[in-house]
Amino acid sequence: MHTHTCFTCDQFLLPPPIPRHQGEALAKTINRTAAMLDNNTNGNVAMNPSESVETLPKEFEPYEMASPLVLEEHGVLSENRVKNREIVLGRNVQSSCYAIKEPEADDDITGDREAYMASVLSRYRTSLIERTKHHLGYPYNLDFDYGALSQLQHFSINNLGDPFIESNYGVHSRQFEVGVLDWFARLWELKKNEYWGYITNCGTEGNLHGILVGREVFPEGILYASRESHYSVFKAARMYRMECIKVGTLISGEIDCADFETKLLINKEKPAIVNVNIGTTVKGAVDDLDMVIETLQKCGFSNRFYIHCDGALFGLMIPFVKRAPKVTFKKPIDSVSVSGHKFVGCPMPCGVQITRLKNINFLSRDIEYLASRDATIMGSRNGHAPIFLWYTLNLKGYRGFQKEVQKCLRNAHYLKDRLLGAGISAMLNELSSTVVFERPKDEEFVKRWQLACEGNIAHVVVMPNVTIEKLDFFLVELIHGRCRWYEDGETKPPCLAADVGAENCRCAAHKKLGSSASLQ
Amino acid sequence: MHTHTCFTCDQFLLPPPIPRHQGEALAKTINRTAAMLDNNTNGNVAMNPSESVETLPKEFEPYEMASPLVLEEHGVLSENRVKNREIVLGRNVQSSCYAIKEPEADDDITGDREAYMASVLSRYRTSLIERTKHHLGYPYNLDFDYGALSQLQHFSINNLGDPFIESNYGVHSRQFEVGVLDWFARLWELKKNEYWGYITNCGTEGNLHGILVGREVFPEGILYASRESHYSVFKAARMYRMECIKVGTLISGEIDCADFETKLLINKEKPAIVNVNIGTTVKGAVDDLDMVIETLQKCGFSNRFYIHCDGALFGLMIPFVKRAPKVTFKKPIDSVSVSGHKFVGCPMPCGVQITRLKNINFLSRDIEYLASRDATIMGSRNGHAPIFLWYTLNLKGYRGFQKEVQKCLRNAHYLKDRLLGAGISAMLNELSSTVVFERPKDEEFVKRWQLACEGNIAHVVVMPNVTIEKLDFFLVELIHGRCRWYEDGETKPPCLAADVGAENCRCAAHKKLGSSASLQ
Repeated sequence: MHTHTCFTCDQFLLPPPIPRHQGEALAKTINRTAAMLDNNTNGNVAMNPSESVETLPKEFEPYEMASPLVLEEHGVLSENRVKNREIVLGRNVQSSCYAIKEPEADDDITGDREAYMASVLSRYRTSLIERTKHHLGYPYNLDFDYGALSQLQHFSINNLGDPFIESNYGVHSRQFEVGVLDWFARLWELKKNEYWGYITNCGTEGNLHGILVGREVFPEGILYASRESHYSVFKAARMYRMECIKVGTLISGEIDCADFETKLLINKEKPAIVNVNIGTTVKGAVDDLDMVIETLQKCGFSNRFYIHCDGALFGLMIPFVKRAPKVTFKKPIDSVSVSGHKFVGCPMPCGVQITRLKNINFLSRDIEYLASRDATIMGSRNGHAPIFLWYTLNLKGYRGFQKEVQKCLRNAHYLKDRLLGAGISAMLNELSSTVVFERPKDEEFVKRWQLACEGNIAHVVVMPNVTIEKLDFFLVELIHGRCRWYEDGETKPPCLAADVGAENCRCAAHKKLGSSASLQ
Repeated sequence: MHTHTCFTCDQFLLPPPIPRHQGEALAKTINRTAAMLDNNTNGNVAMNPSESVETLPKEFEPYEMASPLVLEEHGVLSENRVKNREIVLGRNVQSSCYAIKEPEADDDITGDREAYMASVLSRYRTSLIERTKHHLGYPYNLDFDYGALSQLQHFSINNLGDPFIESNYGVHSRQFEVGVLDWFARLWELKKNEYWGYITNCGTEGNLHGILVGREVFPEGILYASRESHYSVFKAARMYRMECIKVGTLISGEIDCADFETKLLINKEKPAIVNVNIGTTVKGAVDDLDMVIETLQKCGFSNRFYIHCDGALFGLMIPFVKRAPKVTFKKPIDSVSVSGHKFVGCPMPCGVQITRLKNINFLSRDIEYLASRDATIMGSRNGHAPIFLWYTLNLKGYRGFQKEVQKCLRNAHYLKDRLLGAGISAMLNELSSTVVFERPKDEEFVKRWQLACEGNIAHVVVMPNVTIEKLDFFLVELIHGRCRWYEDGETKPPCLAADVGAENCRCAAHKKLGSSASLQ
């Protein structure tokens, strides 16, 4: 066993050795991944950047048009502007796709088509297994087994419209959906006859819904959200043409209530619609709900505010974290959204939206415009998602989730301690399982572990499927990687004091501060 | 075999006899359904209308709050108003749900939990089979077999963000998504390097996206949509705070371009954002795209308009209908949306959105607010849906869809002829497979066949899974039903002249007109 001599690592740290078989497995995995990525540009995979419209089979050729239509004059873009934007949004980043090929007449006989599709799917499945294994950056619980539900994949299950009002379409799963909603309403302490909600397609839909309800309740309201809120919050403001004020944050990522107060006082005449983060996207910071409410009341907004809680990840974890400020409808909050594919785990994105029944009625008051029962953002709604959620909630129950939350928090602490111990800047919010740390210098490494990055920081979200073993594996790779990345001694790891606080920073300047703090 | 003597049927009509075994099967099905509905209120299914919050297990009890918080003063609803709305949106309509029960400590040992869940799922599956069999009202193709894809249900596949820019989350299906998008871009004749698009969650998301892009291109634009447009179009206007003008329709359900012209001329100073229906929800009417463009140009809007085509159902069918006006980006249209769960068939709702690349850049110009690559409505996106679509498109190809469209149109004509022949008011738009007819008087019948109704009319949407045999089965039930519903001779079938035109109406007043017209 060797001690590290690389200057980026603490002298006395002994990283766990990579057992021979693990080292081999690692090398194999890397090779396999590379091979698979190579495969992706071979044989059955078509390259994308074609310049012209492929012609359709002859019988589908466009009809000759009677008069040539004006195409180029339409629209008002200046060419320059378009070109600039195309760099950001252009197609050039996507290098490959599985093209759809028109079947040959004799495909049924030769079986070629079937064989082609089966081979694409089988290679795809292999890559999914590998990608699922090396995943740490997104807050998705990848540990689920819905085998018992595969029988339902044969049905077109659609909960179109309101969960509480049956439409005539009979192939739905409202009975499961309402069961799930009841469970969440109970978790967040809102009576059955006082709540309304639905299963959404994702966290964004929850935020779009919560903020829209807020705007309908207070049409002149200003939207306040900390600058570390999810981008969908600001997208909502833009979509809905709402005035939106960004509030500063503390180093932890929490909303800065002093700044909030200042901004409220400047805009006292208009009601406040507030997005409260129950776990920010990057740092997993939990806004202090009680202090937000206190600030609103102190500034004279006592009955002129609407609070939407964006609990995408943490909405489901926080009820089980001891000493955490409680998210409950016994406080004057108006809506809570949480993602279903994050902590619960689900094959496809989904979410749960719970709001006060009295508020939802604002959304559908204008029946001249809307079908009277339309109170959801989407019309047709995935009927499978509620069954997945129902299945897991039934299986685990409140107690099961509590155990998993505790495990995640423990493992997150382990990761943070190991990172700091290895001389890598890192931070973990007390109520969170999101470990923020120095962004790995190698983009291939970032991609391999599917880390979400912002500026100089990256994060690992410790979900129930993230075991100590997996974390160790990751740590070994990271520590070894850093030795290589910084071996020339010229480039140095970045200072993260502004991102995670000086006490959590292990850059050359703050290293000693951190070590002495941890010795105290 | 008997001829009908009931006055609602034409004298000379011989309805196909119900073969004995079919009649028995029908009776059995009805009984089975009834039994199942009964079951739904038994045993494992909890009744919903509880009055209070059930308490959580003790360890999850809410913390005592330091100071009581103001609940009742929050919000500005008057009590009366709430009560009125609760009738529309209240929970009372939903009678049952599969409650989620907290697992007992010994569940693992007794196997009770597993048995409970399995029994719920098995009963649910039986009801899905029955409900899938008796379904005619919604435009969902229920005929699919994705058995080969069930292996993928174990993965949390998420195409978060832009389809053309890979995020760091590796468990995605962009390579399938782009294949599907390419196929549709080719169908609608937009070059690969000139289009942008994504797989949406449903038709509504497509409309929300198309109209939002339109508003970003023309921030002062007025939204024009025929009054028979899908409700999501008007919801978009309200969400986006856009001025919206409803345009009248012809009896067929198509947009009335004379009315459109009048309304355009009143608002010449503002650009026009136009929703063109490629198949309206109720009547399946296809707006005349060419005439809409002509009207815009005639009124001087030559380069100040944005056209979104809502092709939820028919966007995929119309390319294969001979003599249909072509939906193509060679005309000055800006976006087209189509649903994936409708004509293609998919276990969960989804859709395809195709728009001009140059337009999409407007949506993301404001990078201060948005992550620079965010151009979709939703953030996390279902990665399974693109694979389902990819699978079916590959299997069927353009030719396969053409055959299915032709079959649907033939079967729709058959149904319309049989209805009119039986003296039942009915209409079928030339380019459509949506048969509109007299609303069945018995709501149980409507529910049994899952018919979508509006006012005096109902419709059947003839999808690829709707066979002549199924239509015959339905017709027999409908004709027999009508004999009963109108047997007293006092109530008479409603006049549908205003809905389907006098020539398609078979009410007492218009009966002769229709018969003589059909003799000519």
